[in-house]
Amino acid sequence: MQDVVRLPTRHAGAGELFQLLRDGRPRTRADLAAATGQARSTITARVDVLMAAELIAPAGEASSTGGRPPTTFAFRPSARVVLAVDLGATHARLAVTDLASTVLASTEASIAIADGPEAVLGWIAEHGRALVASTGRPLDDLVSVGVGLPGPVEHSTGRPINPPIMPSWDDADVRGILSDALGGPEVLVDNDVNLMALGEHRSAWPDVSDMLFVKVATGIGSGIISDGRLRRGAQGAAGDIGHIAVPGADDVPCRCGNLGCLEAVASGRAVAEHLRRAGLDAQTGADVVALVRSGDLAAGRAVRQAGRELGSVLAACVSLLNPSLVVIGGVVAEAGEHLIAGIREVVYQRSLPLATQHLRIVTSQARSQVGILGASAMAVDHVLSPAAVDRLLDAMVADGEVAEAAGSDAG
Amino acid sequence: MQDVVRLPTRHAGAGELFQLLRDGRPRTRADLAAATGQARSTITARVDVLMAAELIAPAGEASSTGGRPPTTFAFRPSARVVLAVDLGATHARLAVTDLASTVLASTEASIAIADGPEAVLGWIAEHGRALVASTGRPLDDLVSVGVGLPGPVEHSTGRPINPPIMPSWDDADVRGILSDALGGPEVLVDNDVNLMALGEHRSAWPDVSDMLFVKVATGIGSGIISDGRLRRGAQGAAGDIGHIAVPGADDVPCRCGNLGCLEAVASGRAVAEHLRRAGLDAQTGADVVALVRSGDLAAGRAVRQAGRELGSVLAACVSLLNPSLVVIGGVVAEAGEHLIAGIREVVYQRSLPLATQHLRIVTSQARSQVGILGASAMAVDHVLSPAAVDRLLDAMVADGEVAEAAGSDAG
Repeated sequence: MQDVVRLPTRHAGAGELFQLLRDGRPRTRADLAAATGQARSTITARVDVLMAAELIAPAGEASSTGGRPPTTFAFRPSARVVLAVDLGATHARLAVTDLASTVLASTEASIAIADGPEAVLGWIAEHGRALVASTGRPLDDLVSVGVGLPGPVEHSTGRPINPPIMPSWDDADVRGILSDALGGPEVLVDNDVNLMALGEHRSAWPDVSDMLFVKVATGIGSGIISDGRLRRGAQGAAGDIGHIAVPGADDVPCRCGNLGCLEAVASGRAVAEHLRRAGLDAQTGADVVALVRSGDLAAGRAVRQAGRELGSVLAACVSLLNPSLVVIGGVVAEAGEHLIAGIREVVYQRSLPLATQHLRIVTSQARSQVGILGASAMAVDHVLSPAAVDRLLDAMVADGEVAEAAGSDAG
Repeated sequence: MQDVVRLPTRHAGAGELFQLLRDGRPRTRADLAAATGQARSTITARVDVLMAAELIAPAGEASSTGGRPPTTFAFRPSARVVLAVDLGATHARLAVTDLASTVLASTEASIAIADGPEAVLGWIAEHGRALVASTGRPLDDLVSVGVGLPGPVEHSTGRPINPPIMPSWDDADVRGILSDALGGPEVLVDNDVNLMALGEHRSAWPDVSDMLFVKVATGIGSGIISDGRLRRGAQGAAGDIGHIAVPGADDVPCRCGNLGCLEAVASGRAVAEHLRRAGLDAQTGADVVALVRSGDLAAGRAVRQAGRELGSVLAACVSLLNPSLVVIGGVVAEAGEHLIAGIREVVYQRSLPLATQHLRIVTSQARSQVGILGASAMAVDHVLSPAAVDRLLDAMVADGEVAEAAGSDAG
């Protein structure tokens, strides 16, 4: 700090003030002054620049005890748009959302992630541009892009790291490729399960501070919400529970080379294989779900047993993290009560009373939209952070798009 | 907020500004203005009130390119003191520290936690008062107390919840009893392992953002540092790994009623019992350590095997949390390389490469002081938070101890 001489601009601190307004509730200048302890002149300068940038807008008049009623201001989620991208092994979901993660337009297609980053990201850029255009917004309004990938991602760089099902993506510059192809928006990348956790949390359980989201599909993974925020760990690999050893399963080989991994005994793939050996026609987790829904008893029993195996690992996760909520998502979760029943059976037996006393175990509310909602939330959070809003305002003032407020220079 | 009309005081925001200075580095008013973007008049008013409260002090002159060199200001850790209390089943450690957690005076005694909260907390209050007096400070300078207890604690209320080794403490009002007996300081309570994690992190690894601290003693527990902060989970029970099932150990009964718990196979108590069955004289973890240090091969082998069992559970913890550091503390960690070697053997084999690539597994640096350092850090953090500092300043202004700064009313 001692080396930097930065002259305070009149609007400095507007990004911080804006955080108060992100809940969408209208507030008067007096409300904002009371909530922050800042002088009215400071509030006026900051409100003016946020208004000029169209991040907030007048939201009617407050009631008054006499005299002219004061104007209220509220967050304007339509100020900009973001692109949310949810990529799986064989699917791509795209959505353009506003800054409250409301979906304005969306599309979905079958793709092959194995075609590699250039082909797949080129496809996304093309369809992303078209999707933005379909909402009637210019591409300039696209401020950021959130991308979920089906493999480990180093969040700080946005690069996949040795992703097992998409080896050609190893160390790919997803951020750079996509930003260049979309005219320069900021691009954030994370693994799909982290974004599912974020999407489920924001859309269905925003007031739960400690939650574990578990995806049970071809593979198994999880995302951790702790003290209200997604926790990624040191390399972005937190939540990677698919290769934790299941007690008592040490005779089952896993494709990772170890024995008894959770994925080897309880994933959609593992249950399908189990059913095939019993003479049933099941290739994927979706096939397993279809069999269960058709009333097949063997499939129901196999899913419940998979739930118990999951439960033995989730009991350890519950003891370690002490969440108040475990949410089960992914295609196998759609098999109804069988999976959850198996999980509950073991978790409540195996975890300590203090950890399970107030613990709920439920299936995902947000279902297939959950990845998109999480990608949008990540993209929005990035561009609406105090520092990012300050940068945006600085750039607009420098470009002459927004006049520096003429108020006092009170900081 | 709309219901509250709070007039901004001249010093509002001083608590936030103070956070910048907590690192101890001297800064000029211009440095602070540049770092915050706040007006000089605002900075001057806030610096004045923090000076008057003696939370900061002049720290010499900065170099100047001409004219009178500007004064620098720095955090003044001696402004107040806190009492740190580390309680075990049979010991009590007390320390008076300054606001940088530097120990000014300490004492240690054998106690019996089973004597119950009134007796034990009465003893602590008596010796705590004497310890504060021994530093030459009046009791009024004691602003907060941090207490670590050997059992589960609901952090939000500070009450023990069904603590197995101290049943007479269940739901005891530790905060109220101790605060009353010490003239009204704020009291914070947590379980001992969380505070060991906090103490180890602050004193030895402040720059590590994701760390797991594991205590291996009579029992086994852990504390989680994630994104730089201690994470307690929904009920304060996070890190409670002692009763996670160890794969392959399902024939070992645990005192909790389940089979194959980590504590039943790898705690100091379990290893001592194993050695007793082999004809050796070992009652406690300390006895085990003494045997290992005396060169007993069977004891060394038993500790290494306990390390492997610990490793099988820690591998799951590493997969879930992706820490960059696992620190092993508690008395059994003093058995030298045997325990760590067993842990490393299994963790590096069983966790995914992305999670272990940059993972270090080490023994505790802070050793027996670690609980005291954590209790002090918790107590200090609480009283130096922006809101707490603002409350302190408000109270001092209201009491006339500090004059409201005469600067401009810039917020």
